[in-house]
Amino acid sequence: MRPVDDAHAEEGAPAHPAVVPLGPGGEFDLIRRFVSASGPLPGRVLVGPGDDAAVLAGGWVVSTDVSVEGVHFRRRWLTDPEIGYRATAAALSDLAAMAAEPVGVLVSLVLPDDGAVDADALHRGIRSAAEGVGAGVIGGDVARSPGPLVIDVVVLGIADEPVSRAGARPGDEVWVSGTLGGSAAAVSIWESGGEPPPPLRRAFVHPVPRIAEARALKDRGGVRSLIDLSDGLAGDAGHLAAAGGVAIVLDSRSIPVFPGLADVVGEKEALGFALHGGEDYELCCVVSPGSLGSGKSARVAGVSFTAVGRVEEGNGIFLEDEERRTRLTRGGFSHFGEGGS
Amino acid sequence: MRPVDDAHAEEGAPAHPAVVPLGPGGEFDLIRRFVSASGPLPGRVLVGPGDDAAVLAGGWVVSTDVSVEGVHFRRRWLTDPEIGYRATAAALSDLAAMAAEPVGVLVSLVLPDDGAVDADALHRGIRSAAEGVGAGVIGGDVARSPGPLVIDVVVLGIADEPVSRAGARPGDEVWVSGTLGGSAAAVSIWESGGEPPPPLRRAFVHPVPRIAEARALKDRGGVRSLIDLSDGLAGDAGHLAAAGGVAIVLDSRSIPVFPGLADVVGEKEALGFALHGGEDYELCCVVSPGSLGSGKSARVAGVSFTAVGRVEEGNGIFLEDEERRTRLTRGGFSHFGEGGS
Repeated sequence: MRPVDDAHAEEGAPAHPAVVPLGPGGEFDLIRRFVSASGPLPGRVLVGPGDDAAVLAGGWVVSTDVSVEGVHFRRRWLTDPEIGYRATAAALSDLAAMAAEPVGVLVSLVLPDDGAVDADALHRGIRSAAEGVGAGVIGGDVARSPGPLVIDVVVLGIADEPVSRAGARPGDEVWVSGTLGGSAAAVSIWESGGEPPPPLRRAFVHPVPRIAEARALKDRGGVRSLIDLSDGLAGDAGHLAAAGGVAIVLDSRSIPVFPGLADVVGEKEALGFALHGGEDYELCCVVSPGSLGSGKSARVAGVSFTAVGRVEEGNGIFLEDEERRTRLTRGGFSHFGEGGS
Repeated sequence: MRPVDDAHAEEGAPAHPAVVPLGPGGEFDLIRRFVSASGPLPGRVLVGPGDDAAVLAGGWVVSTDVSVEGVHFRRRWLTDPEIGYRATAAALSDLAAMAAEPVGVLVSLVLPDDGAVDADALHRGIRSAAEGVGAGVIGGDVARSPGPLVIDVVVLGIADEPVSRAGARPGDEVWVSGTLGGSAAAVSIWESGGEPPPPLRRAFVHPVPRIAEARALKDRGGVRSLIDLSDGLAGDAGHLAAAGGVAIVLDSRSIPVFPGLADVVGEKEALGFALHGGEDYELCCVVSPGSLGSGKSARVAGVSFTAVGRVEEGNGIFLEDEERRTRLTRGGFSHFGEGGS
């Protein structure tokens, strides 16, 4: 799960989206380092780390996602069932990113020993997220500690043909589901001491893993690569570009910004949240030209998809409008906080 | 992983083994509550929670085990590689308990944001434990927090015929591998302000998951049920008794207490550690009569196994010597701390 920005973790901090989560290098580098040090994949492991999930012989897809109080959420923002739901939905989103069918979750809980968290309420939320996509709670572990609440959710699913991050080719189209930026905007408003309007709060509190949409998309054909939007469109499209060895050019006029967000935070900030905010848990897919029709929007499994860009030769992520093309870096716009380029 | 006893978590506390870890009910009740609330198992899940690991279609076996600094270990007891090794070995022990072959681990880390833990060193230990049993690190997640170090290790293995906790029948024999009580005794000595002698320290720091032993045992035939000793012999044999709907009678004279432990802590305390201490990560198995020969000890895959008791009709765990038979409760002897019966 994407951490709330350290630089804005205090009450009253400015309303900026989260940028680089883990200091120099960030968590991505750390995970990559762990993985690259691990040598060749064991037999029976078809896809190892570096994608949204590992793929095992027999079509099993497995991923893990950790949520920490004070890092990924604050307890006063959410009820206990909402905390459980959100941690589980975020983890399940990695199965959507592989177009996998969820089967089961295992949940490790570290509960604060002050008794302030109702474990049963937490579990109701966990179960609700799992059962909402047809999965069961099939295992877990529990401990108490004097530290913050920690929820680590392992998700297991099945995919006959998992869709990886690689596969984008020059000429392909880039699409996203739903609308973007609402979740990060809610965090920003909370961190500034405000209370987000209900639709924004809901974007953070109740993400819906796009399981059915991803599977419908795959069944439709033409999907080259797929990822879920946990780090923000710029960062996650960047993963698709890197995995495919291509460049992705996003059209700033096409980004489906969360409805009404520009009215709340201003147009430029709203676009910033949509590009860099993270935790929308929508899908970003690369499809062969025309796979989703000839227009700029389409419906898949009842959810709107929007064409946001195209694949070109090269590398990295670019944002363009009528006037110019700008390379986006992981830190986002220079406008956005200390992590910027 | 079995928590260090809350009642003895402070420096200078008396040298007693850990008893009830989570206050009223303990973590077992909490996990059981979670699971029983989760309804029927999803399709493709052959064994759900309640055993050492879940079993999935295709023979995949999966389990998760969380280790928390200050709860399951203290940082001053261990080097960073040792912390990583121990958390991973403890999790892998659940695969031994199913007689499964390890394939991969996924590790979620919550690192203290004071930078006091060297993530690369931690990872060396994780990898060493995984590679020691032929598994790779195939995924994970990382976050930083102001709280304690948390390591949640998911283990994935393969077993054509996993051995469950159920299956014990009256007349069967109960055996354990290795020797017991060393790990808990080391914790007790640390918690009393001392420094455990190297062999005791090693019992806590460097448990060896009994993977090869469990598989050799299964190949030999006659194994009815199997568990790894994370909660202590009394507690874990209790799980086998409960799962089989039988009673298990342990012979106090046969328990293979850690060599030399009685000289360090006294005979009665040493037996207490062996029965109730936990975290030895040895195997406890129920076998059909004579499966391991006619003697009281045997060697399997180069490791000594000792006959410690037998299965009878009834329920619960009993300890007997020449003079009497005593029912053991989860809290252990009344002699051992406030959690006792």
